[in-house]
Amino acid sequence: MSNKKKFDLPGKTVERLSKYRRVLFDRIGEGKINIYSHELAGMMNLTSVQVRRDLMLIGYSGSQSTGYAIKDLIEVIGSIMDSNEGERIAIIGMGDLGRSITNYFKGKREKLEIVASFDNNPKKIGRKIAGVPCYDENEMTEIIKNENISIAVITVPSEATKLVAQKLLQTGIKGILNFTSEPLTVPEGVYLEEYDIITSLEKLAYFVNK
Amino acid sequence: MSNKKKFDLPGKTVERLSKYRRVLFDRIGEGKINIYSHELAGMMNLTSVQVRRDLMLIGYSGSQSTGYAIKDLIEVIGSIMDSNEGERIAIIGMGDLGRSITNYFKGKREKLEIVASFDNNPKKIGRKIAGVPCYDENEMTEIIKNENISIAVITVPSEATKLVAQKLLQTGIKGILNFTSEPLTVPEGVYLEEYDIITSLEKLAYFVNK
Repeated sequence: MSNKKKFDLPGKTVERLSKYRRVLFDRIGEGKINIYSHELAGMMNLTSVQVRRDLMLIGYSGSQSTGYAIKDLIEVIGSIMDSNEGERIAIIGMGDLGRSITNYFKGKREKLEIVASFDNNPKKIGRKIAGVPCYDENEMTEIIKNENISIAVITVPSEATKLVAQKLLQTGIKGILNFTSEPLTVPEGVYLEEYDIITSLEKLAYFVNK
Repeated sequence: MSNKKKFDLPGKTVERLSKYRRVLFDRIGEGKINIYSHELAGMMNLTSVQVRRDLMLIGYSGSQSTGYAIKDLIEVIGSIMDSNEGERIAIIGMGDLGRSITNYFKGKREKLEIVASFDNNPKKIGRKIAGVPCYDENEMTEIIKNENISIAVITVPSEATKLVAQKLLQTGIKGILNFTSEPLTVPEGVYLEEYDIITSLEKLAYFVNK
């Protein structure tokens, strides 16, 4: 069960597994021991068929009478989602957004840690911001290698995105989360996630008006 | 073409239309007049079949020889995505994240405006933060009605999410963008978008390790 190499999961399933685990953590916090697929589904606006299908995909099935054992399920999801050593993360651009992400993320996940940030503002460089050292953008290659950082979150102004991404790709980074409104393309072997709040708001505006 | 009631688009299409427009704005800024579907696709990591299908869905087709006329296409997308009056938005929770979203969003879209924010911190209430007035959370119902606000963005700490959402739903809000790690459920007729950075990072961690 603990060898995740067995599983080649689609991105959407991985997303849902992450969300299942989040909800399960909450339930554990509330002192619950078991959960039914329809409960999990209800908390996430999914169908229970979807939940059962996802969990079957990772080789997990509950009992008809008691549902899923929450602790077990958290462990199984962890064995698939997390690497043993965990991932080390850097924030590129330590403005309000970079800082709020760093603060928000602190201590939330054992296997993911923000260990460095980068900026081009001399007032920020050399300081600790939100508990994380802030380095000069020009030191990116060195720090990312030395600190064994595999994932970078880009929170610079949109117009700086392309240049920062170019620098990042040269460091050998493996994953990028792009938080700007400038879409990126990355070479094969690098994983990219993009989020732009404008898209979410425009989508809401469309449906609110329908 | 300008009557959007004709179109009942799936959420994913609406998302892509928003992204097309974003890319098209950039191209106009670069002085370009036309764009081919394969160019648009390449800039967004999509196939040109997908682009053509989306645009056909809104009744738009380009010419084989010159592609799409960028200005036209921006207008057509706008006629479908935007309401005439535009949407007025409130930020709930004016911490680092609320402030950075407000700053980021300023002037980005004509038809979407952040007009109010709410917090429970007396030091913030009554002030303007990032150019937007900050009100007491307890005034939500009154302000949201008076200011004709249709969309709220929740950026409070996760443990406060459920209570804030409850208050929000009582105001008659039509759309919610939930930026916390606490999933919400909303009644029919209210539109919900959720984004949690932990999911994005866990997804990246999974693929980076595969």
